Amino acid sequence: MRQIEFFFDYISPYAYLAWEDTQRIAREHDVVIVAKPILFAALLAHNKTLGPAEIPSKREYLFIDILRKAESLGVEIEVPASHPFNPLLGLRATCAANDGERNDAVSTIYGAIWREGADMSTRDALDSRGLGHLADRASDDEVKARLRRNTDEALEGGIFGVPTLRFDGELFWGVDNLPFLEARLRGAPRPGEDKLRRWHELEASATRPR
Amino acid sequence: MRQIEFFFDYISPYAYLAWEDTQRIAREHDVVIVAKPILFAALLAHNKTLGPAEIPSKREYLFIDILRKAESLGVEIEVPASHPFNPLLGLRATCAANDGERNDAVSTIYGAIWREGADMSTRDALDSRGLGHLADRASDDEVKARLRRNTDEALEGGIFGVPTLRFDGELFWGVDNLPFLEARLRGAPRPGEDKLRRWHELEASATRPR
Repeated sequence: MRQIEFFFDYISPYAYLAWEDTQRIAREHDVVIVAKPILFAALLAHNKTLGPAEIPSKREYLFIDILRKAESLGVEIEVPASHPFNPLLGLRATCAANDGERNDAVSTIYGAIWREGADMSTRDALDSRGLGHLADRASDDEVKARLRRNTDEALEGGIFGVPTLRFDGELFWGVDNLPFLEARLRGAPRPGEDKLRRWHELEASATRPR
Repeated sequence: MRQIEFFFDYISPYAYLAWEDTQRIAREHDVVIVAKPILFAALLAHNKTLGPAEIPSKREYLFIDILRKAESLGVEIEVPASHPFNPLLGLRATCAANDGERNDAVSTIYGAIWREGADMSTRDALDSRGLGHLADRASDDEVKARLRRNTDEALEGGIFGVPTLRFDGELFWGVDNLPFLEARLRGAPRPGEDKLRRWHELEASATRPR
């Protein structure tokens, strides 16, 4: 069966919107979603750049943007309990889940944070949603290593933001780009290799001093 | 007549795609486009962040992304002569244009760079496209001041990236979001004020160490 890898961090409301819409895509196109929790902060640190909520004017804009997109996708969204919050426990708990329960755990945590506006950063919060057994394993070395491995896999695969979906080796970044993923699932061809190759070979004639 | 302000820098292929599609929007919805050249590098410097082409993995991704979007919009795009390039002369020449000729100058410069793949960073290149009289005024104090003023206006208006379109005080960032602008031109309501207000009041419970 065809697979979509879904790289995400609970911190991102765009990843929540994409997660919800990807459930629909998976049903309609008969594909399996492989949830890959990663630490978005590690991507930002690696690239020495800022996240959208770390730039004041962009943070302001993204509130409006998210409401527009939620409405357009027909996905309910609520203002979270705080933002940014520490997503680490939720991410590790998700890594502790086995393959059969992982996607339900992601839907539960995403729904609590972004549809209900709940604080999910504590063991008690996860326990109240039936995920206490995963929270209890969040500090296991193997579980912590899995989150690091997922994050390294994302960096090595050229992923710089969340959500990023990977299908058949092709990346789709952001909820805006799910229509292109859907087109590919329907068999639409990829962009032409010739222009891409020339673009890769392109040189700079000026760079910004920094 | 209703107006759309179009904040852009020639450096951005997304702004080129948006400029082309905005011509269609302006015709269909009977609105005037007010071109506002700005220096994208100044926004990045102000926000102490990186542009998409300054992060290697994002630069790689955006080539694919642009080809997908160009195809989806039915806009022709070519690999430019170099990238990044210095957009300053083109931006200043555009600022030198009077209101009646400015939009045509933008279309000419954008088309040369991004549809034909021409280097437009010199006076001769602009002259060969009939814009020598604007290039000749690019070093006038008043023209240079206009570019700075546009850029300051963008920063003060909460603009952090290009293209950004402003209609009726509302911002639309990126070619992905033109459908929301079109919806608004058709009279669709803005996102609810209540959730926006609560989002603005939201506090952080964790921040990324940097």
